[in-house]
Amino acid sequence: MKIRFYNARILAMDKDMEIRRGEVWVDGSKIVYVGPGKADDGEHEHPVGNFHLDEARNWDREIDTKGNLVMPGFLNAHTHSAMTFLRSYADDLPLHQWLEQQVFPMEEKLTGEDIYWLAKLAVLEYLTTGITANFDMYFRPEEIARASVECGFRTVIVSGLNNFTSSLKAVEQEYQKLNHYHELICYRLGFHAEYTTSEELLKGVAALAEKYQAPVFTHNSETREEVEQCIKRHGKTPTAYLDSLGLFAYGGGGYHCVYMSKEDQEIFSRRGLTAVTNPGSNMKLASGVAPVEDLLENGVSLAIGTDGPASNNCLDMFREMFLVTGLAKLKEQDAAAVPAEQVLQMAVTGGARAMGLSGCGCLAPGKLADLIVVDLHQPNMQPLNNLVKNLVYSGSKQNIKLAMVNGRVLYEDGRFFVGTEPEEIYQKANEIVRRIDGQR
Amino acid sequence: MKIRFYNARILAMDKDMEIRRGEVWVDGSKIVYVGPGKADDGEHEHPVGNFHLDEARNWDREIDTKGNLVMPGFLNAHTHSAMTFLRSYADDLPLHQWLEQQVFPMEEKLTGEDIYWLAKLAVLEYLTTGITANFDMYFRPEEIARASVECGFRTVIVSGLNNFTSSLKAVEQEYQKLNHYHELICYRLGFHAEYTTSEELLKGVAALAEKYQAPVFTHNSETREEVEQCIKRHGKTPTAYLDSLGLFAYGGGGYHCVYMSKEDQEIFSRRGLTAVTNPGSNMKLASGVAPVEDLLENGVSLAIGTDGPASNNCLDMFREMFLVTGLAKLKEQDAAAVPAEQVLQMAVTGGARAMGLSGCGCLAPGKLADLIVVDLHQPNMQPLNNLVKNLVYSGSKQNIKLAMVNGRVLYEDGRFFVGTEPEEIYQKANEIVRRIDGQR
Repeated sequence: MKIRFYNARILAMDKDMEIRRGEVWVDGSKIVYVGPGKADDGEHEHPVGNFHLDEARNWDREIDTKGNLVMPGFLNAHTHSAMTFLRSYADDLPLHQWLEQQVFPMEEKLTGEDIYWLAKLAVLEYLTTGITANFDMYFRPEEIARASVECGFRTVIVSGLNNFTSSLKAVEQEYQKLNHYHELICYRLGFHAEYTTSEELLKGVAALAEKYQAPVFTHNSETREEVEQCIKRHGKTPTAYLDSLGLFAYGGGGYHCVYMSKEDQEIFSRRGLTAVTNPGSNMKLASGVAPVEDLLENGVSLAIGTDGPASNNCLDMFREMFLVTGLAKLKEQDAAAVPAEQVLQMAVTGGARAMGLSGCGCLAPGKLADLIVVDLHQPNMQPLNNLVKNLVYSGSKQNIKLAMVNGRVLYEDGRFFVGTEPEEIYQKANEIVRRIDGQR
Repeated sequence: MKIRFYNARILAMDKDMEIRRGEVWVDGSKIVYVGPGKADDGEHEHPVGNFHLDEARNWDREIDTKGNLVMPGFLNAHTHSAMTFLRSYADDLPLHQWLEQQVFPMEEKLTGEDIYWLAKLAVLEYLTTGITANFDMYFRPEEIARASVECGFRTVIVSGLNNFTSSLKAVEQEYQKLNHYHELICYRLGFHAEYTTSEELLKGVAALAEKYQAPVFTHNSETREEVEQCIKRHGKTPTAYLDSLGLFAYGGGGYHCVYMSKEDQEIFSRRGLTAVTNPGSNMKLASGVAPVEDLLENGVSLAIGTDGPASNNCLDMFREMFLVTGLAKLKEQDAAAVPAEQVLQMAVTGGARAMGLSGCGCLAPGKLADLIVVDLHQPNMQPLNNLVKNLVYSGSKQNIKLAMVNGRVLYEDGRFFVGTEPEEIYQKANEIVRRIDGQR
């Protein structure tokens, strides 16, 4: 499909945070042109590839964006999509109690088919908040991949290996299989967390990282208790311990990163690791506030994740973005801490970097057509004093007018185009909860 | 207009937080029936007033709510609506610097007509988040009243008297005039803050409170600096000082209430004052986190306000509700702190109590028809494990399907019915900013 967005404001995020008037052209899964339109009094730059200006009349669709903002989609750099079934089921408990008493017993009852449907429910919600790719850790990853591909959604899967689920052999098989499964799917090495994974397994993951020269991702330093117990066990913080096992020789990153010593931050910076912050989940479980300003000052790359819907409970990049800056301002007692521009970069560029999606994170010719249209004709976006600040401080799901993944419109004006009717997905999710609830 | 909502889930909030199946009937500005419909296998209870069952065929409109949730609208218990013009204009500054360098110089340039249009912009945003009444402090209150009445929106105005604007005489005139202006408008005594208002003026307000046996409202203990300076000036915290002047003899309350001593809380509890918490604004200005759990434990009534759009920057009750509970969980280091049910009560019942709107805050025969329909056919509301938790932990503006004030539908499926086209309001707001910006 050849799709033309015209009469747009464009936040390309390719070299700066400037907003320019113009057009975005999409051909197949790629962006082929970003620049002024004829009405914008500019010259068309030359589009890339086989796309020539004389083809420009053969549009499959021309979308008048009416001055709305076209920008790259958000990248949700940490989540557990299929945990939608636990939304508002087990709230108001601290992390470890919540995991052991509520999450694990319920998860045991899930079938592969359940996970497939529950992941689809999350994809719907991602689209409503302008998320166009997710970094997903859950068991039965082939079901997550199936759900995403059927929806047309982009997913980077990360292994959640631990002492109780999966194995090194399974991880390696998944690595080979899911990295060649579909253009919308990648697979990264990872494990659940230091506190759920034996040293033997961790060494095995390090060996896989070495073999494939691949980055490794894990939950890292989410609670104070986790860090203290790791120090007790190994005489080192989780970051230092995992690094000493060679896990980060080819990069990677940590989810949460709430309790990070100066040395931890130095390791992250030196190894080029990304700290994926999850402020909503950390708040709701009373885990704490990540030192985002310190991490930035120490040169650590940052990205933003919603975490799973069981702990957050929603999958809303706008809420997360406001929390990143708001909590930093409170923590630093400084209203200037972590301004909007930096937060938006975390949610887009930082996510793409963390997930290894070099084709995502900006609008430019040759990049993947993962983009959103933000409705500025809404009261919370008016007046148009500063659109980047509006997005981070005032934006809402209600502003997502359109979400496109890999050149396909999956969400527009509140309607989903993911191959399945939302009501069928809702019905399945409710059936799954009732069935599992009855089995307890 | 006689309007029937049927096939509904109903959260009446009249005696408990139960959700029941049924219907809500509206006649004119009032609710006349809340209860089972024929399809719900129940008997109709007798509606109130002149509304009889045999009239039930003469509906002006019957709305199939398709299982969605009908509940009372949210009450925004502290805001400065007309500050929409400063949204994303002056960010990332602490409170006092922000007020003196950015807000006050811009506000000086505002005309009455400006305030009228800027308040209308806020009303649009309130409707998108299910807010059906606001408690508004700003100068030129007659312009705020005019904007609200033209939109069909309910506003309780509170005087923002201080050493620089308004006077005791003006306040008393406004009190008499605006309390008889229109059924949608009330006016309460108030002043800006201890630190902007002389003792002489404060004593004058206390005299008015005595004369009219009326409650008094003010910004209270928003920053640490404010409390420290009041103690330096008067040897007392703001709450204790204001109480010693007799300002709270007939109740009232404080906006923000971030730094509240045990004695302050005791005064609030004894006088029946409401603490209106404004977590988004307090975060963004790095002012601090209100002791919501302590306040609840000490028997203080609570309500929630967005504060003005210059400091927040959005007017979103869903964001505020999540922040009330999330920040309390962090502050108390307890994931069980301030659960969803309590937060929802603050946003509805607590707001109605603070604003003196005894006709609002629940759905019951004889009450005002200020209500919202929450769209449950959205991924963030599924599965339907616990709707109250879904609303507080996962709800979003995107879930507001309909907002009714005083029996009139003002917002439905993204369209506004406020007598003015939104685009005209947006255009005016942008013109005002450009003009004022040019005058600086």
